[in-house]
Amino acid sequence: MATRININADMGEGYGHYDIGNDAAILKIVQSVNVACGLHAGDATVMRDVCLKAKENGVSIGAHPGFNDIWGFGRRQIRMNANDLEYLVAYQLGALAGMAAYAGVKVTHVKPHGALNNMAAIDKDYALAIGRAIRTVDSSLYYLALSNSEMEKAALALDLKLAREAFIDRLYDDEGNLFTRTDPRAVIKDPQVAAERTVRMVQDGEIISVNGKKMPTKFDSLCVHGDEPTAIAVAGAVRDALKAAGIELLTLPEVMEG
Amino acid sequence: MATRININADMGEGYGHYDIGNDAAILKIVQSVNVACGLHAGDATVMRDVCLKAKENGVSIGAHPGFNDIWGFGRRQIRMNANDLEYLVAYQLGALAGMAAYAGVKVTHVKPHGALNNMAAIDKDYALAIGRAIRTVDSSLYYLALSNSEMEKAALALDLKLAREAFIDRLYDDEGNLFTRTDPRAVIKDPQVAAERTVRMVQDGEIISVNGKKMPTKFDSLCVHGDEPTAIAVAGAVRDALKAAGIELLTLPEVMEG
Amino acid sequence: MATRININADMGEGYGHYDIGNDAAILKIVQSVNVACGLHAGDATVMRDVCLKAKENGVSIGAHPGFNDIWGFGRRQIRMNANDLEYLVAYQLGALAGMAAYAGVKVTHVKPHGALNNMAAIDKDYALAIGRAIRTVDSSLYYLALSNSEMEKAALALDLKLAREAFIDRLYDDEGNLFTRTDPRAVIKDPQVAAERTVRMVQDGEIISVNGKKMPTKFDSLCVHGDEPTAIAVAGAVRDALKAAGIELLTLPEVMEG
Amino acid sequence: MATRININADMGEGYGHYDIGNDAAILKIVQSVNVACGLHAGDATVMRDVCLKAKENGVSIGAHPGFNDIWGFGRRQIRMNANDLEYLVAYQLGALAGMAAYAGVKVTHVKPHGALNNMAAIDKDYALAIGRAIRTVDSSLYYLALSNSEMEKAALALDLKLAREAFIDRLYDDEGNLFTRTDPRAVIKDPQVAAERTVRMVQDGEIISVNGKKMPTKFDSLCVHGDEPTAIAVAGAVRDALKAAGIELLTLPEVMEG
Repeated sequence: MATRININADMGEGYGHYDIGNDAAILKIVQSVNVACGLHAGDATVMRDVCLKAKENGVSIGAHPGFNDIWGFGRRQIRMNANDLEYLVAYQLGALAGMAAYAGVKVTHVKPHGALNNMAAIDKDYALAIGRAIRTVDSSLYYLALSNSEMEKAALALDLKLAREAFIDRLYDDEGNLFTRTDPRAVIKDPQVAAERTVRMVQDGEIISVNGKKMPTKFDSLCVHGDEPTAIAVAGAVRDALKAAGIELLTLPEVMEG
Repeated sequence: MATRININADMGEGYGHYDIGNDAAILKIVQSVNVACGLHAGDATVMRDVCLKAKENGVSIGAHPGFNDIWGFGRRQIRMNANDLEYLVAYQLGALAGMAAYAGVKVTHVKPHGALNNMAAIDKDYALAIGRAIRTVDSSLYYLALSNSEMEKAALALDLKLAREAFIDRLYDDEGNLFTRTDPRAVIKDPQVAAERTVRMVQDGEIISVNGKKMPTKFDSLCVHGDEPTAIAVAGAVRDALKAAGIELLTLPEVMEG
Repeated sequence: MATRININADMGEGYGHYDIGNDAAILKIVQSVNVACGLHAGDATVMRDVCLKAKENGVSIGAHPGFNDIWGFGRRQIRMNANDLEYLVAYQLGALAGMAAYAGVKVTHVKPHGALNNMAAIDKDYALAIGRAIRTVDSSLYYLALSNSEMEKAALALDLKLAREAFIDRLYDDEGNLFTRTDPRAVIKDPQVAAERTVRMVQDGEIISVNGKKMPTKFDSLCVHGDEPTAIAVAGAVRDALKAAGIELLTLPEVMEG
Repeated sequence: MATRININADMGEGYGHYDIGNDAAILKIVQSVNVACGLHAGDATVMRDVCLKAKENGVSIGAHPGFNDIWGFGRRQIRMNANDLEYLVAYQLGALAGMAAYAGVKVTHVKPHGALNNMAAIDKDYALAIGRAIRTVDSSLYYLALSNSEMEKAALALDLKLAREAFIDRLYDDEGNLFTRTDPRAVIKDPQVAAERTVRMVQDGEIISVNGKKMPTKFDSLCVHGDEPTAIAVAGAVRDALKAAGIELLTLPEVMEG
């Protein structure tokens, strides 16, 4: 029975004069943030700001590399050469390390963004490409991978530090895969339902399918979203319920190395 | 009388399917390269490639940050907030450090690109912004600054490691400033003229104005260009003449620390 | 004494997943909109949407070309070749005409955006470049130019259809130039002050300097902003006061051709 | 037996300081060009230049819209909302019409570029989206579609003007589909083989599969490439052989309306 867990969310997704998301609210809920690295969102000014705020809040920092696609916000699936993708990720890891120097902190994990995360979850070549970028640029980084995904396998195959994540507000099917978002049931919007469900997931080390099937699954971090009012409410309720259940909320390195 | 000098040039200015410049020819002439960092030219794939080739050729690597302007190739003057510029430079320093990991080498200097270099030469705010980025991201980097420029002053004011550069193919006026390029005399295109002139410059530690005025000037590196056939010919003749005169050609760190 | 005037504002400045501005509020105040054309803000989806909404609201459409600089939102001054600028503007005029086809309406004016507007107001080459683009792509378009600017002169020199604009919320100096925004007095934030002042401006055909100097000035349109709550309040108060004073508010073509 | 045909090729794929392709050689071979529209390649300056040169050479102009992906040169497959794609194409049609005004010519066809062409050939939603853009912006444009593709069907379904194209240097399988480029036999590099083959194709109105199967197929235009020396040689040989066989080479509108 787990007594400690991490909560992570995306942050720093503004770009130039454009702002998006609710970083202030997110920082009160999570212990780790995934910072956009300038190619699908985020820019140097935003990245620096996020690093400073993360430090102030005792929150650990991860790189959140995505496709080079500002217009698509990294949510468009793009087919590209896996080596080019690897270098694109390496570039972003380096860039964020540069900006983290402003806060005097070290980046400690990598979680792909949006369409890249979705593709790498099921595409071995993409999953390995991200892993090779990590291995080359900074092998001390955790590869934060969806449980049971190709990313998990890639991290193991490349002998990288692996952290696994599960979702608090998304339904799983009986095979342990995420329900497609086009299904109206895919996203859990009721804070109470999400909170109770998540406490059980953490305590039992299981994810629960749409049909009630319990699947023992390892996860070190819970992914929450901040891009909608209901998402913030759900995430806040989950955090409160975990605390009330005596589960410690820690940064990703603390959970992994504690 | 100097017996050792560095020659530097820009490299890695392709982008995606676009290629430009003659990196192979340049690598046979210089001991240090300035690597475009993805915002005005260069991309992750190109940056990695340049780092590997630089290592193979025993050439040291510098970051060549520019404005975020692929279309303009970093040659359009852009007025922006100096803090944003600072972070934009820091971002590029981090990104290149990431790509240099593929070659297992360390970046050792920073030289701004194009319009940013021209503006920072005379604009104190820009010159200092670049310097602060260096200080934060990696204070072991040399700030490769045009002699007598605001960048030189900024490096001194911020207590950074300073390397100075002079041009082999550009005329100076009597105040030691570069002649405007709109003047037909501004660029020296005759390899023999450039070669003789440069040997004298290095041996005497002086730059020579259009009117023949000799101005004692410190410089550690000579900037050459590779974007035209004549530029390559000029640069090659200069290299040969320096060698023939017994002047050692070394990487920038070797010149500075030798 | 003028009895009719136009109010214009910028619209459609979102980009991909990014939204900005308050287009719904603006559409209730203005009779003409300046539509971002995809290079500093706006994208095809946003442009189409704005054209449809403008038509629904009986508001005329103008192109709002800017520099190719999404990150800088077109607010960074960029020095570029005037011919390239001309073609960049022509491109945007064509693109908006394409999107306006979705609403079955014609674009009727051109007003440069942000830094391009500021530069073209005082730079003859830029002002003429914009004018040549208009002349080539669609000479039936009004060049909406700041009164007394180089743009006004360019429109006259190129024999283009000219419409002049004045500001409702900006102070002028005694020469009729806009007060620099770094001066705390530059922007009028009190709706009542702006409203009274604007009614007098329109009725008397004069702009009033910071020192109370009245300068007879032609203008056909009043520029309002929508990017801040106070700006919306100011613009709304101005509209109400103009109506109360019996001044007709019309689209730009109606004002010019009525 | 056809006695007239069109040859088309892509042109104007430079961007800012980057140049690519051999437009001068291509212009001597083709009667119609597909002009990149600024989102995957091309910029306003290049587009204008291509339009002027096309006019000089009596060559008709088509829009060559692609994904918004300069880095990927429009060759990366991108999954996006079909409506957004439609507007993206409409934007490009408008933009090119603006630039064509510099040559005083009208754009007469549309052919999608690269990955968009490949996807739209087999994806009904994409094929229809392109068709709707044409219908809205300028229904007099020919939709230049690969024979037997979803684009052909979309043009028919939307009652658009349809022109069909076939390839001179690519093998077909027994179903009439293009051979995958990963197969070493996919591209025909021998000018003589391509020339003889193409003359037969045109004279017989048939494409010939890798196994020699002849499939009656309508086509109005032959697509050639200019991005490699062998491609130019192949295209030149094809043009010469067609002329020698008494087949007239005409612009696309002339072929369609003659």
